Amino acid sequence: MSDQPLRITVWNEFVHEQQHQQVRDIYPQGIHAAIVEGLTPFFGESAEFRTATLEQPEHGLGQDLLDDTDVLLWWGHAAHDQVQDEVVDRIHRRVLKGMGLMPLHSAHLSKIFVKLMGTSCMLRWREAGEMERLWIVNPSHPIVEGLEDEYFELPSTEMYGEFFDVPPPDELITISWFEGGEVFRSGMTFRRGKGRIFYFRPGHETFPIYRHPQVLQILANAIRWAAPQGSRYFGAGRQIAESLSPIQSKHQANEALHKQ
Amino acid sequence: MSDQPLRITVWNEFVHEQQHQQVRDIYPQGIHAAIVEGLTPFFGESAEFRTATLEQPEHGLGQDLLDDTDVLLWWGHAAHDQVQDEVVDRIHRRVLKGMGLMPLHSAHLSKIFVKLMGTSCMLRWREAGEMERLWIVNPSHPIVEGLEDEYFELPSTEMYGEFFDVPPPDELITISWFEGGEVFRSGMTFRRGKGRIFYFRPGHETFPIYRHPQVLQILANAIRWAAPQGSRYFGAGRQIAESLSPIQSKHQANEALHKQ
Amino acid sequence: MSDQPLRITVWNEFVHEQQHQQVRDIYPQGIHAAIVEGLTPFFGESAEFRTATLEQPEHGLGQDLLDDTDVLLWWGHAAHDQVQDEVVDRIHRRVLKGMGLMPLHSAHLSKIFVKLMGTSCMLRWREAGEMERLWIVNPSHPIVEGLEDEYFELPSTEMYGEFFDVPPPDELITISWFEGGEVFRSGMTFRRGKGRIFYFRPGHETFPIYRHPQVLQILANAIRWAAPQGSRYFGAGRQIAESLSPIQSKHQANEALHKQ
Amino acid sequence: MSDQPLRITVWNEFVHEQQHQQVRDIYPQGIHAAIVEGLTPFFGESAEFRTATLEQPEHGLGQDLLDDTDVLLWWGHAAHDQVQDEVVDRIHRRVLKGMGLMPLHSAHLSKIFVKLMGTSCMLRWREAGEMERLWIVNPSHPIVEGLEDEYFELPSTEMYGEFFDVPPPDELITISWFEGGEVFRSGMTFRRGKGRIFYFRPGHETFPIYRHPQVLQILANAIRWAAPQGSRYFGAGRQIAESLSPIQSKHQANEALHKQ
Repeated sequence: MSDQPLRITVWNEFVHEQQHQQVRDIYPQGIHAAIVEGLTPFFGESAEFRTATLEQPEHGLGQDLLDDTDVLLWWGHAAHDQVQDEVVDRIHRRVLKGMGLMPLHSAHLSKIFVKLMGTSCMLRWREAGEMERLWIVNPSHPIVEGLEDEYFELPSTEMYGEFFDVPPPDELITISWFEGGEVFRSGMTFRRGKGRIFYFRPGHETFPIYRHPQVLQILANAIRWAAPQGSRYFGAGRQIAESLSPIQSKHQANEALHKQ
Repeated sequence: MSDQPLRITVWNEFVHEQQHQQVRDIYPQGIHAAIVEGLTPFFGESAEFRTATLEQPEHGLGQDLLDDTDVLLWWGHAAHDQVQDEVVDRIHRRVLKGMGLMPLHSAHLSKIFVKLMGTSCMLRWREAGEMERLWIVNPSHPIVEGLEDEYFELPSTEMYGEFFDVPPPDELITISWFEGGEVFRSGMTFRRGKGRIFYFRPGHETFPIYRHPQVLQILANAIRWAAPQGSRYFGAGRQIAESLSPIQSKHQANEALHKQ
Repeated sequence: MSDQPLRITVWNEFVHEQQHQQVRDIYPQGIHAAIVEGLTPFFGESAEFRTATLEQPEHGLGQDLLDDTDVLLWWGHAAHDQVQDEVVDRIHRRVLKGMGLMPLHSAHLSKIFVKLMGTSCMLRWREAGEMERLWIVNPSHPIVEGLEDEYFELPSTEMYGEFFDVPPPDELITISWFEGGEVFRSGMTFRRGKGRIFYFRPGHETFPIYRHPQVLQILANAIRWAAPQGSRYFGAGRQIAESLSPIQSKHQANEALHKQ
Repeated sequence: MSDQPLRITVWNEFVHEQQHQQVRDIYPQGIHAAIVEGLTPFFGESAEFRTATLEQPEHGLGQDLLDDTDVLLWWGHAAHDQVQDEVVDRIHRRVLKGMGLMPLHSAHLSKIFVKLMGTSCMLRWREAGEMERLWIVNPSHPIVEGLEDEYFELPSTEMYGEFFDVPPPDELITISWFEGGEVFRSGMTFRRGKGRIFYFRPGHETFPIYRHPQVLQILANAIRWAAPQGSRYFGAGRQIAESLSPIQSKHQANEALHKQ
């Protein structure tokens, strides 16, 4: 809860926008630019936004930038396999140390999300421009702060349906209803190490999802929720080698070892 | 996340302090006064504290005060059964509508906590002035914000041990180790309705627990965490009487009914 | 996992069947009789079924019968408030000691379920004979043992919709999709004390739900899941009075106290 | 719940036993042989045990054996990095499809467990032969079926302490108390895909843990719990390509696609 601005990095593979006129029409500067534009009014001076894309060296995600990032948003779809494993490992370590991560939409199959979940992260889908209604099932969660109604609607989306092969979430925030007959756990939180992860389903590239007011509100809320917080300490895994001794002296020994 | 000060009410049955010199020596103005004194520096202008006690009319908890309370702290032990059911029901409704609740220590058997949990809330205990070490098992939780170490210690406490008969918590924050051989899930969160509940074990009346820096830090963090937040909507339970109709018209009908 | 037959008691308020010809047409002997008839083939010799209804003395639920019951199914709707508090308290104690409980459909507002949950247990509803599709979101759970497909459908049901004001469940088994635009967490587990609870939504009195093969399969599976199991011990709440002493002697003292 | 025997495979890296006389004295045929010997009386004809070790081709874990395994127990410590990634991926796929997995003790750092968890899986430890007391905090869980008391003790063990960097477990079964001042979530369940995972802490190679009656009881219970169960269906991830159409025809289309 410091007075420092939140440092937010929006990553986008930025492939569809360069290949498909339909996507470029919606997001002429890329999805990443649209997300920054949409979120800026929620933060004003209290956040700094940066963007990075696949085509940059190290995909724009050098160690320095990651160390300087509180929350990383991730949009990817067509080029998951082009993301270098070394960069994925770097992000993974950074999440476990406390950086927030928000995989968006088709990022359910991004290497970083799959690595953090440990499951296939597969789901059902259908691209039919049908209506999605997102029901709030966790009404006191900060991620739905300020939403006016029990649900909100996206008039035309790609469908994602259950079974979504992820671990049981820590918190289930929204369940989506789709016109064609499916349901989907569309907003879920997961803690991994000291990192806080919010998966949020909306965001297909051929619909202007990132201009939808409730979608933006939820993303802004979730960034605040995912920012690093909690205990300053996180040093599991050091061996405590001294042999058994009376509790008092052990306390002191532990004490010494606890300081990183 | 408004700029309004948090409205915090500290309730104390205030019986031990009047009956036992040993308790009065530690908390001459009562446990409630000590809690307010200990927490004030964490909030400054950003919170208003009020206190209430068992002996007051309606136990000091009229509807107006509750409606004007964001978070209610509850300390009780010897006189749980003297709390009127009507007042308990009033608090219960207020929690379900979003007021935060923090039952402290022996409040595990308070009527309001038992009613919210639905279980016996019994546990093991022993009053032997032994050491308690609280280990943080959820290091990224806002309730442990700013704690420096993996654990902290209370040198002399009453022991509480498992099995603690509460529902599985939403989040397990701390596990206590006791010198005599027991463990205890000593910091746990529960959501009920729109209310956020944090049970925190430390606080026996014959030890100056509410002057301990980490205990106060956790209470201050938990108050911020438990304050009302989330969606403005919470109107489950209204019947939607219209007969089946095409989706579009149903949407409109629902729309009309959603507004409270 | 003994060779003793499971002792299953099916409770039904048995009001609608006596008042409404439409319900009597579907369930001429009452919903309780239909449930027993539907479940018997799943168990053969391995279960004994008993029924009880509101109009019987003590609603048919004397202490002896409850002590002799492994799993209690509960169907109620119109007469929740006619169930005596004393009987509710008796069932509550029995659940905490290990009896399984399966509140069905409109039993979400039964006194016993509300008491165990601690929340309002309210939800949205609409009686419009619309289609419900139940999606399995926990495919390895024993409660969905043997189901062939990812979902199953009830062609004509009463709608229940979110927000359903219950605590976050231990396990979410099914999510329902309704034709009119709602979703519902329709199969959920909750542990309370040593008791295992499965809330299952289907079951409206004006549709022949309890003859549906997947509904019956799930009920049969859930009975096996909810039957008492686990540690033989459950004695939280005894004071351990001895003063602090070296660990070894404390172990022995505890040992003595652990035996009920 | 078929009448087929459970097919249990016990994997052991089998390194310590060949290198250290102290370990060979306790487990002359290897830890895997001791586990099989200890568990056999719990199953009789109802299980078939197989063993496999690191030094065998493909570490003894060919696709055929895995396909023919219901539950895989895993003991490893000194040679985690010698397990081939290809075999790890094979086990991973098999777990997601429903095979139970029980990583034991130092297997918290095995490649397969780390891959399934997505976190560092690090913890604190100290090898000092101190007493561990395991408290049961989930008394109605089938994994503690038949245990007589609230806790049991291992007189001389290696210590593992929090923070244990794993995701929040689905179910917390036991919490360990250690003589030297630490606590540990020592028995935890995790569902991943259709696979059920039980991590159980006890088992150091220099103490005869796998002859301890409660440890063996819990392992036997957990094998039954982890065996494949649930819905026969698990086919997330197939694209449903047809364009939007009325619900009825979509149902039929989905129907066709659901069959694997």
